[in-house]
Amino acid sequence: MIRINENYTKLKASYLFADIARRVNTYVAAHPSKPVIRLGIGDVTEPLPPVCIEALHAATDEMSQRATFKGYGPEQGYAFLREAIAQHDYAARGCAIAADEIFVSDGSKCDCGNIQEIFSTDLRLAIPDPVYPVYVDTNVMAGRTGANVDGRYQGITYLESTPANGYVPSVPAGAADLIYLCFPNNPTGAVATRAQLAAWVAYAKQHKAVILFDSAYEAYIRDPEIPHSIYEIEGAHEVAIEFRSFSKTAGFTGTRCAYTVVPKALKAFDAAGAEHSVHALWNRRHTTKFNGVAYPIQKAAAAIYTAAGQQQTTALINFYLENAKLIRSAMTKLGFACIGGDNAPYIWINTGRDSWEFFDRLLNEAQVVCTPGAGFGKCGEGHVRISAFNSRENVETALARIAAALK
Amino acid sequence: MIRINENYTKLKASYLFADIARRVNTYVAAHPSKPVIRLGIGDVTEPLPPVCIEALHAATDEMSQRATFKGYGPEQGYAFLREAIAQHDYAARGCAIAADEIFVSDGSKCDCGNIQEIFSTDLRLAIPDPVYPVYVDTNVMAGRTGANVDGRYQGITYLESTPANGYVPSVPAGAADLIYLCFPNNPTGAVATRAQLAAWVAYAKQHKAVILFDSAYEAYIRDPEIPHSIYEIEGAHEVAIEFRSFSKTAGFTGTRCAYTVVPKALKAFDAAGAEHSVHALWNRRHTTKFNGVAYPIQKAAAAIYTAAGQQQTTALINFYLENAKLIRSAMTKLGFACIGGDNAPYIWINTGRDSWEFFDRLLNEAQVVCTPGAGFGKCGEGHVRISAFNSRENVETALARIAAALK
Repeated sequence: MIRINENYTKLKASYLFADIARRVNTYVAAHPSKPVIRLGIGDVTEPLPPVCIEALHAATDEMSQRATFKGYGPEQGYAFLREAIAQHDYAARGCAIAADEIFVSDGSKCDCGNIQEIFSTDLRLAIPDPVYPVYVDTNVMAGRTGANVDGRYQGITYLESTPANGYVPSVPAGAADLIYLCFPNNPTGAVATRAQLAAWVAYAKQHKAVILFDSAYEAYIRDPEIPHSIYEIEGAHEVAIEFRSFSKTAGFTGTRCAYTVVPKALKAFDAAGAEHSVHALWNRRHTTKFNGVAYPIQKAAAAIYTAAGQQQTTALINFYLENAKLIRSAMTKLGFACIGGDNAPYIWINTGRDSWEFFDRLLNEAQVVCTPGAGFGKCGEGHVRISAFNSRENVETALARIAAALK
Repeated sequence: MIRINENYTKLKASYLFADIARRVNTYVAAHPSKPVIRLGIGDVTEPLPPVCIEALHAATDEMSQRATFKGYGPEQGYAFLREAIAQHDYAARGCAIAADEIFVSDGSKCDCGNIQEIFSTDLRLAIPDPVYPVYVDTNVMAGRTGANVDGRYQGITYLESTPANGYVPSVPAGAADLIYLCFPNNPTGAVATRAQLAAWVAYAKQHKAVILFDSAYEAYIRDPEIPHSIYEIEGAHEVAIEFRSFSKTAGFTGTRCAYTVVPKALKAFDAAGAEHSVHALWNRRHTTKFNGVAYPIQKAAAAIYTAAGQQQTTALINFYLENAKLIRSAMTKLGFACIGGDNAPYIWINTGRDSWEFFDRLLNEAQVVCTPGAGFGKCGEGHVRISAFNSRENVETALARIAAALK
């Protein structure tokens, strides 16, 4: 008799975006004349940069001719893309990351979700709260947690991001083996300083732990003192894996390309204490269960690293950051304590009240959709996330409506 | 201290394609004037069908304009593609598969590799021999096997495909819970009759087992009596998951699109014996760890289902099948017992001697690369696989050289 993976039954169903959709749909049905502006979901709205469009067309033409047609490529990604990444995202920032330490994939969601497979099931987890739900759910599925009790899974050390610590958690008192960190943070938009990241690297070294560092939003950092990569911290290549994505850098949410860096110096251990290369383990996993990203998509991603591509993506991100600045400024003026928006596309607003109640108020009185913080974890309660991904006109209209509603 | 998933240490390193590459490279270096023809790897050589090229260009243009730009799509795939699949691949063959039972992905390798996650780790596995290595390796990684002893993992029931059973294994005497089947088969090219598949479905029903049916090569079937889908067998929707791919149907090996069918009628059980929907489990897995296929790629896949697309892909497959016919006929004329090539792009040749020895002979005396059967499992010994994926000219040259070398 076929049996299920019973860990799935522990998953607490996430109704967050379904709940939001239901409430928005109900409102729209009842008020067809009042257009709703969506600043909830973290999806980009502006078209792909022209260099990516050109690269997609050119690669498509290559696929139409026998002489230039591409079948299976290297599972880890084409050298032209891995080398561009190594050069522009790492060497240019003083990080010694080799092209063959970079694994190109179709999304950071996949990589963040799959990476835990190569580690033991009985390790001690540390995961932020509030948090991108994939980190937690994939570990529940793998059997690394107990039941969900009162909104939290047993067996996870939650790293609380609160007003008291400026939404950047310190290292925990006890030992953890696998630590998820995300800066600039989703959902809070908080960034970690060099000193804060250095403390995490030191902690990981002390405990022989591995840090999974999600820097999907690094392109939004404008403060020159804030590290873009954890590898800007000395010794991090011995303790950290880094996840990056083109989704928010170049509008690739519907185009799908990302990458993961697994340094060769990173080791993990077997029960007998012997060292194993994490790079070799991930390479085995990646080549066994993945067949590479579409050739035209990899060409589009590589185009981002040309001079024109850098200019176009910077302009795109500046556009969203200008939206973010408007949002943070308007919400601050209304008396709310805010974080994010300066080095991230998200603004995290301390509403001082129930996050669903605040969501309903914005929807009903300003026709604006945000994301209730409670959906990201216990520490998200009392907050909402507003996203900068929309047109300038929509953002300005939304802010005017919010000001009128909340004044 | 971070510990590894020690199941990875049980994996027997597969040196097959690396070994082939090493021997070929050595030969080429020593004989630069003798061009080698590769009929080893199962990768397509002909360009994408024109309908796919047109669709890629059109979708790229959509991605260049704000009004038509696509961000995140449904993780399970766009309705336009799922509906085209349901209509053309299932309804047209009398199989009642709904669009929302189809999960679009970036490759069958991923789906075949990931599907096991939703089942318990202590189930009883039945896997063919010879076999596509992904079925075995992903279960080793998940801890469902013991050590590799004498070329086989403990805890797997191997379904032997041999000359004696026409390379189509019968149901085993004992009980299995999760059964991998692949028809048309990789590597043998053998197909299963309706009666043979019906016996497997009956077996699965009897044992409350699940069949994982890989039909990546179904488009190569030309015999009208051979089922293209396991759902052509009555009751199969209660016991089977089917994997399909555009890789070999439309030359998508470098374009990446596939799909998996999980019928809602399919149930699995918890330890208490309660039924669970496998569709719900896979949907949870798919939406948690995957973010959908690139929009332009899904448009290219959907174009295959237009009248022009059907014509173009049929012509493409007929071209490879004509190659296959030439290969099988030439090898048969040389006195070898062959299977496959009539309803599959692979020809499985019973060489009657060590498969590496035969490989070396073809390489050294005919400058032709095949795949030694031993690389696919114990039952592959004594055989080689020749692939029909190449130009007509290369296939004809290769066959003339083989005939000269082996006569």
